[in-house]
Amino acid sequence: MAFLTDEKLVIVGAGGMIGSNMVQSALMMNLTSNICLYDVFPPEVGPVGVAEEMRQSGFVDACITATADPAVAFTGAKYIISSGGAPRKEGMTREDLLAGNCKIAEGLGKDIQKYCPDVKHVVIIFNPADLTGLVTLLYSGLKPGQVTTLAALDSTRLQSALAKKFGVMQSKVTGAHTFGGHGEQMAVFGSAVKIDGKPLYDIVGTPEFPTEEWEQMKKDVTQGGAAIIKLRGRSSFQSPSLLSVQMIASVMGGEPFRYPAGTYVSNGKYDHIMMAMDTTLDKNGCTYRVPQGTPEENAKLDASYEHLCKMRDELVTLNIVPPISEWSKINPNL
Amino acid sequence: MAFLTDEKLVIVGAGGMIGSNMVQSALMMNLTSNICLYDVFPPEVGPVGVAEEMRQSGFVDACITATADPAVAFTGAKYIISSGGAPRKEGMTREDLLAGNCKIAEGLGKDIQKYCPDVKHVVIIFNPADLTGLVTLLYSGLKPGQVTTLAALDSTRLQSALAKKFGVMQSKVTGAHTFGGHGEQMAVFGSAVKIDGKPLYDIVGTPEFPTEEWEQMKKDVTQGGAAIIKLRGRSSFQSPSLLSVQMIASVMGGEPFRYPAGTYVSNGKYDHIMMAMDTTLDKNGCTYRVPQGTPEENAKLDASYEHLCKMRDELVTLNIVPPISEWSKINPNL
Repeated sequence: MAFLTDEKLVIVGAGGMIGSNMVQSALMMNLTSNICLYDVFPPEVGPVGVAEEMRQSGFVDACITATADPAVAFTGAKYIISSGGAPRKEGMTREDLLAGNCKIAEGLGKDIQKYCPDVKHVVIIFNPADLTGLVTLLYSGLKPGQVTTLAALDSTRLQSALAKKFGVMQSKVTGAHTFGGHGEQMAVFGSAVKIDGKPLYDIVGTPEFPTEEWEQMKKDVTQGGAAIIKLRGRSSFQSPSLLSVQMIASVMGGEPFRYPAGTYVSNGKYDHIMMAMDTTLDKNGCTYRVPQGTPEENAKLDASYEHLCKMRDELVTLNIVPPISEWSKINPNL
Repeated sequence: MAFLTDEKLVIVGAGGMIGSNMVQSALMMNLTSNICLYDVFPPEVGPVGVAEEMRQSGFVDACITATADPAVAFTGAKYIISSGGAPRKEGMTREDLLAGNCKIAEGLGKDIQKYCPDVKHVVIIFNPADLTGLVTLLYSGLKPGQVTTLAALDSTRLQSALAKKFGVMQSKVTGAHTFGGHGEQMAVFGSAVKIDGKPLYDIVGTPEFPTEEWEQMKKDVTQGGAAIIKLRGRSSFQSPSLLSVQMIASVMGGEPFRYPAGTYVSNGKYDHIMMAMDTTLDKNGCTYRVPQGTPEENAKLDASYEHLCKMRDELVTLNIVPPISEWSKINPNL
């Protein structure tokens, strides 16, 4: 069995629906011969059981370990994917969830700094990923290009919606990308989209695809997560798992990742923020370009950035992170 | 993207935990460009949502359809994997479950005969698979080598247990196979097992591996499903999914399947029964050899066969299948 690497990959939250799927996906893709399942081990979602299921699936060539001890999990880790946040529970306010998951991200960042400062790349997917990714990066001491967040689901949702609308294979829809934040404030860019080679904006506004229908589609894409919950009776778990494993595969030197990733941006225009850009993930980590769309799309991206800034500033107000002026004391790379 | 085939694969029960994992696994393994998700569509486990999640995972080259209509699902199908049984519910007796799932298997067999008599291979994994597979075969009109059942989990459990015991990579444990029925009556064969090249029976009975410990391990393997429920708080779903997709991959001409499959046996010694044999799965379907172990192991296999016969005869008594003498009227291949 040829693995992409023999370096250690840690899946955080490996006992959960997303995490256990990541483990399976990483093994199926032959990413690494050394995979460690880390979770907090509540008996009902134990990664020990997931590891055992993997062995019973016939993954006979990989070293599959499971632990609840962060020292064991992170020591020697070169790649990390974390879905290890807490879900929103009854009676929790939005701030409770935000504070809770950002505290978890702080702990993860500190564990990285303590146990695996030589880690090559970290992918964060627990909500709200724009912020948990930022907090992880801050406390990990890593370089901006070493921590990315899952942002691709909005783009694949747009790609899928356009493929269905025009009755073409999804591979025939190219350039369907969303940027900025994840969620209702995302910036959907249509100007680079081609449908079977034909620019989307040559079609929008014609009887084939009236402007109102395109506007509705963009709105639906921002509600894509809720749509899956309605269709499946549970949050999506296979798609976030697969896309994040594809992200880590690309930084391992595998197939290039085809969709935008969330990355740390601080370029004078957008500062001290984690947001989806036009990214490249490879062995050097993440590099980005600011996407250029129509004036309207660019304005939408600016608005998405402003929204993210407000949420980031809320973290400061809630005392979860210090003011930006002090960030470089915690992480000299920022 | 190079697919193993462009022929239609139908996943039955595609909305469930096992079925949705099968869909993902088949797509990840690039088995086919044409996959149909079939289920009964209760809103909480809809295959439409699973199909959408797959599109959102970036499987852009495959045609992924979802339907609740058996005519749409099975017409043109060349390969089928079914996890579409009903789970045991509170207050159900063992007979209720048996009767219910065998009725589902009868319906599946009849759908196959009606809509896709040219199907190449069918893998059945819903419980009790030895019997649901037999009933499916009977009513489908297919040849014995065209319907197999998932039996490999017992073998991978044994392989995993031995690897852990001896501290070797699982790939270093060869020949760890169980035969006959699935469950407590299975026949665990140790005589072909090698641990890193060394015959297991050279080690059993030594201080390194006392006979009692080996006996206990064999017992534990038969309880492997319950162990996963304890460790995960839910039935295994990733391992049955992956192994059954590996089975269908092998009959599509992909990698050879490495573990025993359940197959129809009628050779004078074992008659009119579905049980795990020493099997080969390839483009010609399933062929088998009766495994030869120690006299004790062979006796255990005979006992497992007797147990399966009792269960099969119960199906006759319950009027789920006619007496064996009438089977050839329903399926001339039996």
